Amino acid sequence: MEGARNLTGKKSDSPLWKGRSSGMVNDIMLEMGESISLDIELFEEDIRGSKIHSEMLNKIGILSKEELQKIHTGLDQIREEIIEGQMDLRIELEDIHTHIENRLTELTGDTGKKLHTARSRNDQIALDTHLYVKKSAIQSMKSMYDLCEALLKRAEEHTDFLLPGYTHMQVAQPIRLSHHLLAHFWSFLRDFDRFHQSFQSADRLPLGSGAMAGVNYPTDRKYIQKKLNFQSIYPNSMDAVSTRDHIMDFLYASGVFMVHASRISEEIIIWNSIEFSFITLPDSLTTGSSIMPQKKNPDLAELSRGKTGRVCGNLFSLMTNLKGLPLTYNRDLQEDRFPLLDSSKQIQMTSQALTEMIRTAVFNKHNMQSSLEKGFATATDLADALVSEKNIPFREAHHIAGDLVRVCMENGCTLQTISDELRAKISPLLEDRAFFRNAIDLFKSADKKISESGTSLPRQKDQLNQAQQELSSRKEILKRNAEPS
Amino acid sequence: MEGARNLTGKKSDSPLWKGRSSGMVNDIMLEMGESISLDIELFEEDIRGSKIHSEMLNKIGILSKEELQKIHTGLDQIREEIIEGQMDLRIELEDIHTHIENRLTELTGDTGKKLHTARSRNDQIALDTHLYVKKSAIQSMKSMYDLCEALLKRAEEHTDFLLPGYTHMQVAQPIRLSHHLLAHFWSFLRDFDRFHQSFQSADRLPLGSGAMAGVNYPTDRKYIQKKLNFQSIYPNSMDAVSTRDHIMDFLYASGVFMVHASRISEEIIIWNSIEFSFITLPDSLTTGSSIMPQKKNPDLAELSRGKTGRVCGNLFSLMTNLKGLPLTYNRDLQEDRFPLLDSSKQIQMTSQALTEMIRTAVFNKHNMQSSLEKGFATATDLADALVSEKNIPFREAHHIAGDLVRVCMENGCTLQTISDELRAKISPLLEDRAFFRNAIDLFKSADKKISESGTSLPRQKDQLNQAQQELSSRKEILKRNAEPS
Amino acid sequence: MEGARNLTGKKSDSPLWKGRSSGMVNDIMLEMGESISLDIELFEEDIRGSKIHSEMLNKIGILSKEELQKIHTGLDQIREEIIEGQMDLRIELEDIHTHIENRLTELTGDTGKKLHTARSRNDQIALDTHLYVKKSAIQSMKSMYDLCEALLKRAEEHTDFLLPGYTHMQVAQPIRLSHHLLAHFWSFLRDFDRFHQSFQSADRLPLGSGAMAGVNYPTDRKYIQKKLNFQSIYPNSMDAVSTRDHIMDFLYASGVFMVHASRISEEIIIWNSIEFSFITLPDSLTTGSSIMPQKKNPDLAELSRGKTGRVCGNLFSLMTNLKGLPLTYNRDLQEDRFPLLDSSKQIQMTSQALTEMIRTAVFNKHNMQSSLEKGFATATDLADALVSEKNIPFREAHHIAGDLVRVCMENGCTLQTISDELRAKISPLLEDRAFFRNAIDLFKSADKKISESGTSLPRQKDQLNQAQQELSSRKEILKRNAEPS
Amino acid sequence: MEGARNLTGKKSDSPLWKGRSSGMVNDIMLEMGESISLDIELFEEDIRGSKIHSEMLNKIGILSKEELQKIHTGLDQIREEIIEGQMDLRIELEDIHTHIENRLTELTGDTGKKLHTARSRNDQIALDTHLYVKKSAIQSMKSMYDLCEALLKRAEEHTDFLLPGYTHMQVAQPIRLSHHLLAHFWSFLRDFDRFHQSFQSADRLPLGSGAMAGVNYPTDRKYIQKKLNFQSIYPNSMDAVSTRDHIMDFLYASGVFMVHASRISEEIIIWNSIEFSFITLPDSLTTGSSIMPQKKNPDLAELSRGKTGRVCGNLFSLMTNLKGLPLTYNRDLQEDRFPLLDSSKQIQMTSQALTEMIRTAVFNKHNMQSSLEKGFATATDLADALVSEKNIPFREAHHIAGDLVRVCMENGCTLQTISDELRAKISPLLEDRAFFRNAIDLFKSADKKISESGTSLPRQKDQLNQAQQELSSRKEILKRNAEPS
Repeated sequence: MEGARNLTGKKSDSPLWKGRSSGMVNDIMLEMGESISLDIELFEEDIRGSKIHSEMLNKIGILSKEELQKIHTGLDQIREEIIEGQMDLRIELEDIHTHIENRLTELTGDTGKKLHTARSRNDQIALDTHLYVKKSAIQSMKSMYDLCEALLKRAEEHTDFLLPGYTHMQVAQPIRLSHHLLAHFWSFLRDFDRFHQSFQSADRLPLGSGAMAGVNYPTDRKYIQKKLNFQSIYPNSMDAVSTRDHIMDFLYASGVFMVHASRISEEIIIWNSIEFSFITLPDSLTTGSSIMPQKKNPDLAELSRGKTGRVCGNLFSLMTNLKGLPLTYNRDLQEDRFPLLDSSKQIQMTSQALTEMIRTAVFNKHNMQSSLEKGFATATDLADALVSEKNIPFREAHHIAGDLVRVCMENGCTLQTISDELRAKISPLLEDRAFFRNAIDLFKSADKKISESGTSLPRQKDQLNQAQQELSSRKEILKRNAEPS
Repeated sequence: MEGARNLTGKKSDSPLWKGRSSGMVNDIMLEMGESISLDIELFEEDIRGSKIHSEMLNKIGILSKEELQKIHTGLDQIREEIIEGQMDLRIELEDIHTHIENRLTELTGDTGKKLHTARSRNDQIALDTHLYVKKSAIQSMKSMYDLCEALLKRAEEHTDFLLPGYTHMQVAQPIRLSHHLLAHFWSFLRDFDRFHQSFQSADRLPLGSGAMAGVNYPTDRKYIQKKLNFQSIYPNSMDAVSTRDHIMDFLYASGVFMVHASRISEEIIIWNSIEFSFITLPDSLTTGSSIMPQKKNPDLAELSRGKTGRVCGNLFSLMTNLKGLPLTYNRDLQEDRFPLLDSSKQIQMTSQALTEMIRTAVFNKHNMQSSLEKGFATATDLADALVSEKNIPFREAHHIAGDLVRVCMENGCTLQTISDELRAKISPLLEDRAFFRNAIDLFKSADKKISESGTSLPRQKDQLNQAQQELSSRKEILKRNAEPS
Repeated sequence: MEGARNLTGKKSDSPLWKGRSSGMVNDIMLEMGESISLDIELFEEDIRGSKIHSEMLNKIGILSKEELQKIHTGLDQIREEIIEGQMDLRIELEDIHTHIENRLTELTGDTGKKLHTARSRNDQIALDTHLYVKKSAIQSMKSMYDLCEALLKRAEEHTDFLLPGYTHMQVAQPIRLSHHLLAHFWSFLRDFDRFHQSFQSADRLPLGSGAMAGVNYPTDRKYIQKKLNFQSIYPNSMDAVSTRDHIMDFLYASGVFMVHASRISEEIIIWNSIEFSFITLPDSLTTGSSIMPQKKNPDLAELSRGKTGRVCGNLFSLMTNLKGLPLTYNRDLQEDRFPLLDSSKQIQMTSQALTEMIRTAVFNKHNMQSSLEKGFATATDLADALVSEKNIPFREAHHIAGDLVRVCMENGCTLQTISDELRAKISPLLEDRAFFRNAIDLFKSADKKISESGTSLPRQKDQLNQAQQELSSRKEILKRNAEPS
Repeated sequence: MEGARNLTGKKSDSPLWKGRSSGMVNDIMLEMGESISLDIELFEEDIRGSKIHSEMLNKIGILSKEELQKIHTGLDQIREEIIEGQMDLRIELEDIHTHIENRLTELTGDTGKKLHTARSRNDQIALDTHLYVKKSAIQSMKSMYDLCEALLKRAEEHTDFLLPGYTHMQVAQPIRLSHHLLAHFWSFLRDFDRFHQSFQSADRLPLGSGAMAGVNYPTDRKYIQKKLNFQSIYPNSMDAVSTRDHIMDFLYASGVFMVHASRISEEIIIWNSIEFSFITLPDSLTTGSSIMPQKKNPDLAELSRGKTGRVCGNLFSLMTNLKGLPLTYNRDLQEDRFPLLDSSKQIQMTSQALTEMIRTAVFNKHNMQSSLEKGFATATDLADALVSEKNIPFREAHHIAGDLVRVCMENGCTLQTISDELRAKISPLLEDRAFFRNAIDLFKSADKKISESGTSLPRQKDQLNQAQQELSSRKEILKRNAEPS
């Protein structure tokens, strides 16, 4: 035991629990117990909560108007000091609450101490993380909105680009690029809704629960609720200080978003390969080499994919942490902070990276078409046409189409480039050039997908409209929550 | 390559892809590729979907009324055969769709084959898992309802039981047992809502997406939607066959439920120890020994806690699986089945186990009170009373209360049992017996927690009412979805 | 409570704990408590352990020779019955131990009961899983051996195939295919060693620990150790029944193997795309369509990749399960069985699938070379050559090479196909055709990588030799453990 | 695009890839791409590697003696600057390598640039993490050693303390406290070995692999190997830059350690409850209140348990990250740093916390014995004694013992305190007081566990000896690696 030290190198003389009889505190207690290195990021929430709490205390007669004023002035000053980087972080002061409490007492004396009437660190940290989740959820919803908007815009621009739809990474059918981009649009729109759910999950006021049994004062929780914009109040004080559901919900929404992000990132990475060359990313979003200007490393897509494990890991970290914890507050719960703050940061970066890439990518129509041709994407359409227009049995039609593909492969050509002679050799039914051209036409193939949600042009227009409407409704949700949440 | 075998020992001669030129199929292909050993559990969903699909095909003129009838009769028969255990599972028939398709063709010839018009295995399996998630979500919501109802009932019965509220597993404050039980009530009520969200997440129709680009027919998806009770239709066919969001959402809801289950299970296990002896479980829910009748192993609580890792692991399994998958269908997605089916089963068992234990547990008032006394749970109340009633400074009050506890510890007594003499020695202020008794009274301490959501009796009544109302509103939700979902 | 039922539909009348006074057992107890549906797979281990245990009991005088004989005969018969599928699994008999115990008592009367002297179900299941891990680890080591052998063989065959080495999925440098295949070889060889470590982790005898404190008999654990081939004996009976380290170690080795498997699977999937076309898998290992013979779905590679989440999930499941469990046996531990049995099965399938694919894949030299050219893989070599042979500054050399690539890109040609004229326009230094050809030669580029472990031919030969030696040393390890482990 | 900024507020003008034609770099590229905020912690490894690399370059004639001297002097100065906190971290300089390279060029001009001959950032970061894993593994092994030593010392001191051995958290059998402490000893000793395996896994030199294909120089890797103390050299350059096995192995060893740590922490937390009161932790390792001196929050144990999810999450983060990554370097791999650095830090704190608690805890013999008595821990011993000494059948003996316990429970006494009269009423066989006392004696019960690894005193002595020997052999391993690893 080497004695208490702090981050700033000064000897500590005032651990919060210094009232303890034999109060020597071990170094490892300070080092392991501190959370200030993380929860300093919650200072806005902590101060905001304290201001409203003090207003309530004034309302129920515990603080005088003057005391309230003093406390507000003090808290405003502390906020400025933190923003300006003037607050020393001292591990013996453990957490953000104590740092602020300590400084407030320096500034206001006993008045400051009164602020802590009718609350505990247990419900105070719960309040802070609820406010933080709400803030991060709104930010994330905005990010999802931006990403969806970018995808929709690019989809609108690319209804006449065809590319292969893949199954098993094999060329399957011609689809419109708009269709492909919108597939991701819907996915990220669901992420918007999932973040919204996590917002609602955090939209419950925990403050007023005390250590866990409630407090000995006739507090006015509805006042606090109203001023802090909470939808409801936790009906059970023990639940309020024990639950981390709101954080799990946010971490889960983050995890699913990252899974989605990793899927489009994988496509960007593959499309950006020289072999596919479906996409060109701007220099400002890639790294490369002066010698090989064609080499553009899609770092942002790789990092987005790579961070998926991290954000999912954060969810599992918390779930494992909570497993088997009895009620109510256990110190284990302090470990909720890292996953929350980290995931929040990772998804902001990732969503911004994706949005930038989507906004700026150039799609290479020619290479997409080339893959469709190399992949014989309309061989099945030909077989269908043989059945419907040439009235031959299904089995025979399949046989002819299969033979044709095989001959193309042997001769290094495609359905589009095979010579009339070669074609005629396979079957007299293929001699009809107009029929054949029509049957293997890539756009016509796409336009046969007339079912709702399909890739035909009219259905794409429908889908674009629907996407626009859904996006507008999300804009309304954002507006409703634009006020300081 | 030893040739194709099947689960029933018969040589296979008809793999689905037998059209392939050199169609020898390797054993490992059969063994690794089969999913029938799992998706046989989806047979109800598969058949139900096929019946409605065939109705739609009739409606748009692809199937005649007679053909439709034949198909329905065939599917009904197959359903019976599966229920009766008469269907051989053959790994060379891979999955549930092919088993049913194969049998239907045996029963109806070419008519059966027509059923597969305008759909693919990709959107068919998507339909099946959407229906299955909806079914499981409803079951889970019912289970959550039952569990909440049991907790509420026991809470109503136990407003006059006091036990310690714990922080850090240390006795902190007296709380009512109703309060403790309700803390779990709110937690499981949120699980109800989370399962409801997963229900809504699955409440979108994927059928009609074909392999992924849509189908070449003017299908009537709204008919299918209506008959299968889907809230909406996937607006994008590629998204519909690629997404597994609905399964993730269900697995997440399951994981959080298990985390909650593990927390109450931990408490049951600890309360059931001889040292705590807060709870007595019925013999029918424990295992024991004839020699030591006091020894009752809380196996169900341990298993509930133990299955938490498994159910969270299932979520992790799927998230990792999906990470980095490009659109659209990849065979990796077949691995969605195990986590879905397994978690569904585990949570049904776990919720039933918890409900049974909650319903039947006997709570031991005496031992709970004994812990409160041994834990000096009202020492702080005494200090507060010294300040407010004896008008001494806070610091001095703390000093006296601390001394008192120390003396009790040295003399092996409690605040309730310390002699008047001993007490008087510590401070003359403690001589006032009526004051002292009042100040350390356990019930009075609880009743001072008058803040909303606190443990005082009036607040408990409020909370019980609120809980009853919330539960009723969940009953409404269940009723609305009582029709075949 | 509907009364006890069993899997076979018969009413149960003999739960193991039936001595309990009010012994009615709840359905959920049976359903949730049973493990026989899983641990039936441990029957060989259970019977083997019982036979040796009975020999030991005979050795220390607890069983007579005749009793021993009776027990062995009974156990042999039970083993046959299980193999022949004649044993009914009854959930009221809970687990494999009780099934065998019950049947043995039917066959041998009180003699059979004596078998359970000096052991408990706690150390018996520990023995079973230790034996099972050892068996699975050896199987896995064999599978790793086979896979490595296949990779080495294909590497030996392909020292003269060049393909792009990729960073960021971008063509970077020419490498030999042997080099690429060997990169995976070393990875899977480490998996061999990791499985070996899990074998050693399980190579400790837990039997003889009783319920957890040891047993009241002078047992001869060294006899059992010797007969069951254990390296050592657990020195602490509490540890022996509580630890699941051996299972975690096996699940971890399995998880890492799957991560490695997913990486090579990803490459197979990408290489199998029409855009890359680096690889052709045999029809027997792919699925396809009769119309599009070029379309070969790499299902085995996709499933291998897809199962990675599952196997990692199994590890996570157990780690979360064990988190926070106090000593010694807790019923949670029963949940160790599913992850163990499932991962063991998944990795056998996956390793076999990979080995088959590696053995049979055809590599397409031409397309690999085409990617190298399209990717300007030797542009850097050219710059280097300009510096070293044409004595121009590094910066200028880079400039020329960069210009050259840009001109190629604009003109749709490669370094290999650009015309002399075009080249000369960029810089007179590029006019020297022999110099240029030499500088951009793909094989020469590879052969410049002369550093140890590099891709030059001599270094490949070294590496192949080293690989052969390492593989031989693993064969020795397998041989040493060939005896019944 | 707002233009490049850096952490220190200065405009950046030299991104590493500035040679790029249109080299404007987006903010998100800088923010997301930087790793310096983490890998600054690898500066010792980076500089150490660079010094040896430069020596090798001198040895093969690429650097002159003077140049080498300049580089060493420069690197030493940079090291000092970093230690003194004088190095600005600039996100546009991305990573630790570039920061050092940049500064070295400032200090030494073109000489510094030569240092980067024959290596790339890919093999340089691989070298750094290999060295870091080795260092962390050794630190962890030392921590495990200290923890085991503390456990062994306390075990030696407590062979005559009896406490209940628990199964299902139920009192089962009397065991010695030494036995219980040693159970954890063996567990942490296996962690020592697992960290040692991760050390060996990292004990392979990756430097010399270049970007991935090897380098164009006749490098002397054996020199580097020898000077940096590596056991072997990666035989394949692609593997060397792609593998993260060494990090996974370390994260796994860390995860298992945390699982073990969470188990003993759970026990400390429960034992520290007022209901158990088996343990008293020093004030310096707990937090408490001045009013309730009996309340000692076991924060360190809770935090140790709580960090388990985090450290396991780090493992899963990396496994998910690596899933499906093709060879060779992908930017995703940059995300290996956070889990490595974080887990390393968490386990150092946790192991130190455990060691401190073990060293200083006071065990409460009286309360442990009280639990044994309340739990009727020797009722089974009594039944055994009735069989062996009073010659009654097993069934009857069980009946008597069960009745006795029941009577005790009804009368609120224990086997130790039941009156002679009450006992005699149950059965005349219990009248024999000497027999009875002997049969229910707690120590005698423990001493009947004579089997190897059991809790009898002689076996404890054996185990303590064995533990001492095993610990000594680990000391040897630490000594062998005491040289700068």
